[in-house]
Amino acid sequence: MEFYPELIGIGQRAKNAARRLLTLGTLEKNQALMAMAKALIEHEAEILAANMQDVERAEAKGYKKSLLNRLRLTSAGLREMAKALDELAGLPDPVGEGEFWTRPNGLRIQRTRVPLGVIAMIYEARPNVTVDSAALCLKSGNAVILRGGSEAIESNKVLARVIAGAAETQGIPEGAIQLIGETGRDWVEQLMKMNSYVDVIIPRGGAGLIQTVIQQSTVPVIETGTGICHAFVDEEADFAKAVPIVINAKTQKPGVCNALETLLVAAPIAHTFLPIIGEELKNRGVEVRGCEQTCALLPYATSAQEEDWATEYLDLILSVKVVKDLDVALDHIFKYSTRHSETIITENYSRAQRFLREVDSAAVYVNASTRFTDGGRFGFGAEIGISTQKLHARGPMGLKELTTVKYMVYGDGHIVE
Amino acid sequence: MEFYPELIGIGQRAKNAARRLLTLGTLEKNQALMAMAKALIEHEAEILAANMQDVERAEAKGYKKSLLNRLRLTSAGLREMAKALDELAGLPDPVGEGEFWTRPNGLRIQRTRVPLGVIAMIYEARPNVTVDSAALCLKSGNAVILRGGSEAIESNKVLARVIAGAAETQGIPEGAIQLIGETGRDWVEQLMKMNSYVDVIIPRGGAGLIQTVIQQSTVPVIETGTGICHAFVDEEADFAKAVPIVINAKTQKPGVCNALETLLVAAPIAHTFLPIIGEELKNRGVEVRGCEQTCALLPYATSAQEEDWATEYLDLILSVKVVKDLDVALDHIFKYSTRHSETIITENYSRAQRFLREVDSAAVYVNASTRFTDGGRFGFGAEIGISTQKLHARGPMGLKELTTVKYMVYGDGHIVE
Repeated sequence: MEFYPELIGIGQRAKNAARRLLTLGTLEKNQALMAMAKALIEHEAEILAANMQDVERAEAKGYKKSLLNRLRLTSAGLREMAKALDELAGLPDPVGEGEFWTRPNGLRIQRTRVPLGVIAMIYEARPNVTVDSAALCLKSGNAVILRGGSEAIESNKVLARVIAGAAETQGIPEGAIQLIGETGRDWVEQLMKMNSYVDVIIPRGGAGLIQTVIQQSTVPVIETGTGICHAFVDEEADFAKAVPIVINAKTQKPGVCNALETLLVAAPIAHTFLPIIGEELKNRGVEVRGCEQTCALLPYATSAQEEDWATEYLDLILSVKVVKDLDVALDHIFKYSTRHSETIITENYSRAQRFLREVDSAAVYVNASTRFTDGGRFGFGAEIGISTQKLHARGPMGLKELTTVKYMVYGDGHIVE
Repeated sequence: MEFYPELIGIGQRAKNAARRLLTLGTLEKNQALMAMAKALIEHEAEILAANMQDVERAEAKGYKKSLLNRLRLTSAGLREMAKALDELAGLPDPVGEGEFWTRPNGLRIQRTRVPLGVIAMIYEARPNVTVDSAALCLKSGNAVILRGGSEAIESNKVLARVIAGAAETQGIPEGAIQLIGETGRDWVEQLMKMNSYVDVIIPRGGAGLIQTVIQQSTVPVIETGTGICHAFVDEEADFAKAVPIVINAKTQKPGVCNALETLLVAAPIAHTFLPIIGEELKNRGVEVRGCEQTCALLPYATSAQEEDWATEYLDLILSVKVVKDLDVALDHIFKYSTRHSETIITENYSRAQRFLREVDSAAVYVNASTRFTDGGRFGFGAEIGISTQKLHARGPMGLKELTTVKYMVYGDGHIVE
């Protein structure tokens, strides 16, 4: 494939910066993060003015309100972003940690955590991802190439210039934070083939974006997740736990990947549990799409179609199915789950253990809401996304998932026999 | 993409087997490995007869002797394979290990090592890879789909049938070990797109095979390595270490990825070191392709061309370059290394540390041969290959690299605020 010379230039600068980042200490990276936070506040007027151009253009094009909300920056939002950078500076640095052992021949092997190198981020209309991604990559010692959606291009240009400039004042090499300023599809298509310059691509956004990157990229991809999350309410469930968990998982923030999409109810308790949860769901404006038995017990439910079981609603809609027992629940989850997060509500020890072991998802819960699948809530401090793939990273990805290892080996004239 | 129904059948059986493998314990897997070892010996006549067909066909086609050697099985070779299976049964099982912690709200999080799921192996003419790959995948709890080269098809069919049958007698689910019996390219092209059935593809073989898989696969790939490995002999090198290390790294087994391909010599010692190492290399029949200065010091050397620095010879050929100092050596390695293994020979502490830190390769050595980059020599017990990519696995890959993690979370009615 032929690449634009400008794109090769970006790749080369990133690769050179990554090489220099290997020699930087944690202190220097933290100072850069704090300088970036300060610069965001100092350049507030300029950033908000650029953002206003993006918002007005999007309004003129008649974009949906939800997109406008993701696009719009505010003074308070900028302060939040700056605060997050300061907090990131306070987190432990994964680079330079590791284990070591000594072989019988005296060779000492150090397995050391090191940056991945050059990370390309491909994302959509949220300009805060520009700052967030750049900061996480910098903290973990990586150079980043940012490619945001065209809707946010003016905001992203100013944000990238401001934070890259601030980082450089603290000794971060030029090229460590770069934005692709062109919005044509051809640029991102080339970027996904630049194996000589880019070590990893991380798409952040909707299912369409992620699938496109997976299909087209020859550079290794970390897939961040769509979630068709399930709750199975077992026949020995404690309703005092089951009801709050289902309501929390479905309604606390329905538009996110760890929200509940399908409720499975064990047949022996369907006639007692469904009317109770049905009432609570109805009161919160949740539309129920149920199997035949569910519809018989909940008059306001509509009939679920086959595609409903395979749909991530990201909305106040819930698929509900009555299943004979745990085995049938496991079969349903095996067939429809995106392997993000699933929970069982039960007081039965053995069925809880079977669920934990046999459900092949990134996070599997007993008696807890699926909404806990989150880097912050798991205690990682920062999160770049939630991986639903199995290679490299699975579940919430923190700073450690932005690193790899290398083996440093200390010899004294060692040769192999 | 449309898939052959037979291939979808293989994918579905593998996926179902992977699900059942999640519930198997280490003991059952070990018993299956030992039964497979026994079966190889019991079916020796049948296996060697099938192999003879492959060898005779290859000879009739006029294949190279090196290919015939890789293809040919012997009674002693079968015994080696059986012994390796018994040894694998004795290794620790990575599945089910992990860490756990408790969040301030009382939620207990277990980060547990689990199998990857379904692994597809794509390889070339070596039938022992069939047994080796199946065994490593089984020990780590994965279902495997094997696709070997057409040259070894008769051997592979018998081997796969014998080991899968033996494994099934010990309770391993049908579909855990499957071979694609068709040799057409179309089958492998489809296999590389079967994201719904295959979790990971591992190509094992030459650079051409690996590049094809990386370019064409939409399933995540673990890249196993080509190695343009470098040795830098610093001006403060101890020649008593430098000479044996260079000779060992180049000549002990020149056809492997961790063998030395390029020697960099610090200018201040070029006139003393090069004649010594040149004599030793010449005595061992190593052809030297050198820079201008090297050719001036070693009359028998030929002039290195630009492409020599970027070539993995896998043969008794060595590129040799005189460099001003460590910085120039680092620049050369940055430009030409495949990031597999590099070594510095020096008594200087600070330059040794700089080399370890600044060379971005899977394994970086001080005063040791690059030939140590190997799962067995690192103490991992088993090896599926050496990864030169940075995602998921880097350097020698053992059983642990054939697993992923999942989070098992124990709650008591927990909901998020």
